[in-house]
Amino acid sequence: MAQINEHYQKLQAGYLFPEIGRRVSQFCDANPDANVIKMGIGDVTEPLAPAIIEAMHQAVDDMASHGSFKGYGPENGYDFLRDAIIQNEYQPLGVEVASDEVFVSDGTKCDTGNILDIFGADNLVAVTDPVYPVYVDTNVMAGRTGAANDCGQFEGLKYIPVTAENNFVPAIPEDRVDLIYLCYPNNPTGTVISFDHLKAWVEYARANDAIIFYDAAYESFISEENVPHSIFEIEGARECAIEFRSFSKKAGFTGVRCGFIVIPKELTGADSQGERQSVHALWNRRHSTKFNGASYVVQRGAAAVYSDGGKPQIQATVDFYLENAGLLKKGLEDIGITVYGGVNAPYVWLKTPESFDSWQFFDHLLHKAHLVGTPGSGFGASGEGYFRLSAFNSRANVEEAVKRLATVVQ
Amino acid sequence: MAQINEHYQKLQAGYLFPEIGRRVSQFCDANPDANVIKMGIGDVTEPLAPAIIEAMHQAVDDMASHGSFKGYGPENGYDFLRDAIIQNEYQPLGVEVASDEVFVSDGTKCDTGNILDIFGADNLVAVTDPVYPVYVDTNVMAGRTGAANDCGQFEGLKYIPVTAENNFVPAIPEDRVDLIYLCYPNNPTGTVISFDHLKAWVEYARANDAIIFYDAAYESFISEENVPHSIFEIEGARECAIEFRSFSKKAGFTGVRCGFIVIPKELTGADSQGERQSVHALWNRRHSTKFNGASYVVQRGAAAVYSDGGKPQIQATVDFYLENAGLLKKGLEDIGITVYGGVNAPYVWLKTPESFDSWQFFDHLLHKAHLVGTPGSGFGASGEGYFRLSAFNSRANVEEAVKRLATVVQ
Repeated sequence: MAQINEHYQKLQAGYLFPEIGRRVSQFCDANPDANVIKMGIGDVTEPLAPAIIEAMHQAVDDMASHGSFKGYGPENGYDFLRDAIIQNEYQPLGVEVASDEVFVSDGTKCDTGNILDIFGADNLVAVTDPVYPVYVDTNVMAGRTGAANDCGQFEGLKYIPVTAENNFVPAIPEDRVDLIYLCYPNNPTGTVISFDHLKAWVEYARANDAIIFYDAAYESFISEENVPHSIFEIEGARECAIEFRSFSKKAGFTGVRCGFIVIPKELTGADSQGERQSVHALWNRRHSTKFNGASYVVQRGAAAVYSDGGKPQIQATVDFYLENAGLLKKGLEDIGITVYGGVNAPYVWLKTPESFDSWQFFDHLLHKAHLVGTPGSGFGASGEGYFRLSAFNSRANVEEAVKRLATVVQ
Repeated sequence: MAQINEHYQKLQAGYLFPEIGRRVSQFCDANPDANVIKMGIGDVTEPLAPAIIEAMHQAVDDMASHGSFKGYGPENGYDFLRDAIIQNEYQPLGVEVASDEVFVSDGTKCDTGNILDIFGADNLVAVTDPVYPVYVDTNVMAGRTGAANDCGQFEGLKYIPVTAENNFVPAIPEDRVDLIYLCYPNNPTGTVISFDHLKAWVEYARANDAIIFYDAAYESFISEENVPHSIFEIEGARECAIEFRSFSKKAGFTGVRCGFIVIPKELTGADSQGERQSVHALWNRRHSTKFNGASYVVQRGAAAVYSDGGKPQIQATVDFYLENAGLLKKGLEDIGITVYGGVNAPYVWLKTPESFDSWQFFDHLLHKAHLVGTPGSGFGASGEGYFRLSAFNSRANVEEAVKRLATVVQ
């Protein structure tokens, strides 16, 4: 009798974004003339940069002739991309990463879920709260949690609150955890971590033989000085961290699909005999057995992100989204709303007006202003009373959204 | 203390193809002038069809403008591709499949590995022997086996021999298994399954509440009448089977990356209470949580496989490879080698001459004829004494290979 993986039955009924989609569809069906502005899902809106378009056309042409056709590529990515990543993402920071420590993939959502395959079932896992739901759900699916309580928190996971009360600084645990997810610049709060606090996390991880999953998918939005771009800027991080990076938000690749992770060769985990085992070797085995490389055409597009033509084009689009974030932030502050984020991230994280919880504010904005955002409580219990707006939109829509917010929030 | 997944330590030292690569590199380094013909890994050699190139260029252009830009797509695939799949793969067979029963992915290697996520740890798994190594290794990684014995067979897996002795017909088990992998046309043997025998498997699965993973990645190479193209041609299969399909060999997508699976809504597995649970719903949850859709440009390329322009172009390339297979088969038979497959598949599966085991024959061909094939024993214990040659190559190389074989095999 074929048996299912019962851990899936512990999952909450719906992933956050489908539930938003359901409510929006229902509203639009009832109000077909409403001009709904969507600032919920953090999906990019600007087209690919011309340098990327050119590189992808060239790559498609490569696939048209015997001499340049590409069949199976290296599972871990082409050297042209891995080398470009090192030269452009790590060398400018003074961080040493070897080419074969970079594993190219079809995106960070896949990577953050799949990385769990190579770790044992009994690890204690910590997440910040609020948090990107995929970290939690993939651990539930893998059987590392018990059931959810009424707040949607799963037994066996450690939740570290990040709220206005603690200035969005995740406290270092007093007890032991084995695997820790840190995402900076943070989704959903748009906040960043200081060098000092990231150093404290690295020290904690080394002292406790824990591993940090450092999700830096929004790294390119860092606009201020003295903000870490990579966890490997911290001494000792090579012994305790995996870094996740994405082209999705950096270069508009949400529909193109490319990301990468960096696993230093020094990083080890323990087997049950207490012997140290290379995490790099485990992931290499996982990646080459269950994955067949990202599309050649996509990898050529990703490499163009680092070309002389591509770099300023990418930066201009990032700046455009950051200006959107600044407009949203100012517009909200002008009407008395408290806002976080929006400076080093494409998200603003606002405190809902006192009479609204997160979903009530969602429904209020949808019905009164025809605006879609994301309820903070959808990211975790500590997100209750907060709300996320995405700056990925046209300037006209952002300006219109600011106007509408002013009319419905007093 | 972060703990690794110890099941990985049960895996054999290297996946088959890296070991072949190692031996070939060693030989080439020592013999830099040797013109080595590679017929080992089953990787396509012909460029993409013009209709696919055109569609991919168009899709790249779509990504260049606001009006046509695509961000996150539907995780399960765009309707334009899912609909084309149904109209072209299933309707001509008289098989009813609904659009939302098709899940588009980045390839069958990923799908056959990832599908295991949604099944419980205690299922009994059966594979044919020889077999595509990914089926075995991903079950080892997931903890469904014990250790390997000296033949490389893992405790807890059921191996069903397919050899010349049983005419490559996998016997229906007399005892219970829960999950069964069947791959037809078969990799590595190139043989097919009859309607009657596939019907017997479906009956077995239904009687035992088992699920068949039917890998039809080589379906487009079927050249004879009365060979099943889909397991869903068999009555009752919708209650007991998942079908895996790929564009890799059908349309030269090994470096482009696209495949799909079909999960009928009738298919269920049991939870520990004995309640029936929808496999379709479980996979939908898995796919939308751990995957973000195949690349838009890739999906547009895949849809062009079914365009009026694309269809005859794709068929011409499949025919070309099949002619290669026929030349290899005839060449080998002319020198007294017994050959299987090569008629409905791009692989010929030959009996090694008496004085050679599989790896000895590999080394003999490499050193004496500068030909690379795949040792049958690499696919499983019952593959010992067999050898696989791939027909994915240029006509000139195939003709040259046939000549060389004649000189070194007596």
